[in-house]
Amino acid sequence: MDYLKDLFEFLKIDTTSAKGKGEEGARFLVDYMKENGIEAELIQHKSKNPYVYGEINVGASKTLLIYNHYDVQPVEPLDKWNTDPFNPVIKDNKIYARGVGDDKGSLLARLQAIIDLMKENKLKINIKFLYEGEEEIGSPNMEDFLKDYHEKFKADYILWEGSGRAPNNAPQIVLGVKGLLYVELRKKTPKDLHSMYAPIAENPVWDLVYVLRSLRDESGRVLIPHFYDKVKKLTEEEKRYLNIDERYLEQAIEQKVQEGGMLRLVEEPTCNIAGIYGGYTGEGSKTVIPSYSFVKIDFRLVPDQDPEEVLKLLKEYIAPYGIEIVKYGSVRPYRTSINSEIARALINSAKRVYGVEPIVLPNSPGTGPMEMISRHLNIKQIADGVGVDNYGSNIHSFNENIYVDDYKLGMMWMKELLAELSR
Amino acid sequence: MDYLKDLFEFLKIDTTSAKGKGEEGARFLVDYMKENGIEAELIQHKSKNPYVYGEINVGASKTLLIYNHYDVQPVEPLDKWNTDPFNPVIKDNKIYARGVGDDKGSLLARLQAIIDLMKENKLKINIKFLYEGEEEIGSPNMEDFLKDYHEKFKADYILWEGSGRAPNNAPQIVLGVKGLLYVELRKKTPKDLHSMYAPIAENPVWDLVYVLRSLRDESGRVLIPHFYDKVKKLTEEEKRYLNIDERYLEQAIEQKVQEGGMLRLVEEPTCNIAGIYGGYTGEGSKTVIPSYSFVKIDFRLVPDQDPEEVLKLLKEYIAPYGIEIVKYGSVRPYRTSINSEIARALINSAKRVYGVEPIVLPNSPGTGPMEMISRHLNIKQIADGVGVDNYGSNIHSFNENIYVDDYKLGMMWMKELLAELSR
Repeated sequence: MDYLKDLFEFLKIDTTSAKGKGEEGARFLVDYMKENGIEAELIQHKSKNPYVYGEINVGASKTLLIYNHYDVQPVEPLDKWNTDPFNPVIKDNKIYARGVGDDKGSLLARLQAIIDLMKENKLKINIKFLYEGEEEIGSPNMEDFLKDYHEKFKADYILWEGSGRAPNNAPQIVLGVKGLLYVELRKKTPKDLHSMYAPIAENPVWDLVYVLRSLRDESGRVLIPHFYDKVKKLTEEEKRYLNIDERYLEQAIEQKVQEGGMLRLVEEPTCNIAGIYGGYTGEGSKTVIPSYSFVKIDFRLVPDQDPEEVLKLLKEYIAPYGIEIVKYGSVRPYRTSINSEIARALINSAKRVYGVEPIVLPNSPGTGPMEMISRHLNIKQIADGVGVDNYGSNIHSFNENIYVDDYKLGMMWMKELLAELSR
Repeated sequence: MDYLKDLFEFLKIDTTSAKGKGEEGARFLVDYMKENGIEAELIQHKSKNPYVYGEINVGASKTLLIYNHYDVQPVEPLDKWNTDPFNPVIKDNKIYARGVGDDKGSLLARLQAIIDLMKENKLKINIKFLYEGEEEIGSPNMEDFLKDYHEKFKADYILWEGSGRAPNNAPQIVLGVKGLLYVELRKKTPKDLHSMYAPIAENPVWDLVYVLRSLRDESGRVLIPHFYDKVKKLTEEEKRYLNIDERYLEQAIEQKVQEGGMLRLVEEPTCNIAGIYGGYTGEGSKTVIPSYSFVKIDFRLVPDQDPEEVLKLLKEYIAPYGIEIVKYGSVRPYRTSINSEIARALINSAKRVYGVEPIVLPNSPGTGPMEMISRHLNIKQIADGVGVDNYGSNIHSFNENIYVDDYKLGMMWMKELLAELSR
């Protein structure tokens, strides 16, 4: 098997899900698995871009389900790329191509590692594969799919799509996700008014300002009563692997970050204003009392906060203000214990392959559907790692790339992880 | 003189200043005045739409300067008009035409009344006229004009453009204007961020919310220290003529108005949010920490607040927040004493003509350049009244109209006012 040659073939296929280009990539995977002796199947279900199911049953007592996605983000604007995004090239020890960092590289490195083990007869754990073709458009059909196919994907652990190197270059393991509650608050009066009526007229923007000010203080603390009741503080063990210097965060956000920033990023739930609008927003001045104003707010939630519960607390708390609340979406947070088998196996294997302590995020600062998947498949151990990307991989952007060496190390990590899980 | 026939001729001339159509209207006025024995002159100065100067010197000790504007607002959208806006018609005792309420009707009613008095040899006070052709586009050249021509317009009192009937149908007199300070507050960070960074990143919208909340409490009271120091409370005499039922205000703004609303409307300075913007304002949700936010604020000021002083107080007060402040404009408030000759003369003449107590606003809730004019002409008594419009006149809108009777009453009021001032 020529690992990189096969990877390049895979990368050449345009699998942009936003353009519905899934089929060819999915077929490549099914063929590739079958050619290498893996049971595989293309499942269309309700999606445009089909799912790929695969399985290797070695008669072991434990099964690992590996999730990846073969679809990619649109490549536009093309003129920002130095090379053709669908014609991979190696330059200065890096592979440049759309999807090489997210997520085709991790997908194939893992698969090739497993094929190696199979051929050497060293695979001592059952493997299942779930490849999705719609991750980059928000997995709109995933929950329906899992409802119908959960029996097929029974397993003991799930390895998530891939996490390569942390900002400090150590391997990065992620054990969960934050949850989300997204709402819009709205206030309306019958009509716009000349601002000379300000002494007697209600102003919806002012109304929202007072509500907002009551939701969060200047230190960032959320003021909704009982908001923090269910927050699970990190254990000492969970904090141990979080030592990333704040300067890496400062580089990422281009703002000053206080000490302890990494811990806050993982542990703190937040109330963020994502958008606000009201009245005249053009050039210069207009003296008007706006008749309409809205504010979009996302709450990032941590285990064990529940978005529906937070919504209820929010509604009760701001009821006196007479503000309309529209809910746009919610995702529950999720966290796999750092003492779980999958977490220990990821940590130990990472140390062995990379020779350094990994960075372990008890949960990502971002959000994902881990809880939904755990619920439908009834699997309690979900973790991420064994990826080939790094913080300079430009995923979702132009000149996406990974180090050639990291591809090889990703394969090794996969093998070591499976060895750990098979002990 | 056929009053209405001449008025209709005047109304037929399109004098939309936004389209630069001043010349014809200005020439009509100069000719009309000259034909009737009044010294008159067209002054182009720096403006597109010329000024008209006129004078009647009867050798009296006192001079009244009458200000009006002959330009009108654009008539669009035309399909909302029931009749041609530049072809006046009388229907149900109302005259319909663009400008009949604002300000051509008041202009000509006053002029015709004065011509009547001249002819009857009853004019016992000197009159000067200043007709502007750019009021509806914000009088962009007025200050420059007055700087160069102030000698020409020396007078003892100024009668402003016209105020007809109050919402309760009593004649309305206005003795001043509120001032204005318009600012924009802005906050910026280097770039938009994924909202997962909310625990450690600055959010410009939140920054503005805290500043805004510190500017004004929920009762509407401005919290900037010393903001109210220079506010001149209304005297009992000034409050006496303010008895307009709150239900008229409720009709105007389509909101509930508390008792005392009329007093607050006149007496209270305000801090109004005219516009706010930040982050994602499209449909649905986007999880972003905005990198930019601004808020547009107008402060309506009352005598003797000074906008520059308020700006200084504001800057000092919010300096700790690190917010950029951009000033868009300022106008000083102005108030002529209710005990001045012009105010007493307006009140007495209104009572005699209409048979009821007038409504007297010590200052309008809105803003105008009275202070600027007072300063350049060195005239301390400026007041408004002697108008032909009412609160249903639809000025600036479609189907602009006045009552035929109010045109005649406006002429009578002009005559009685001059009689009062000549005593």
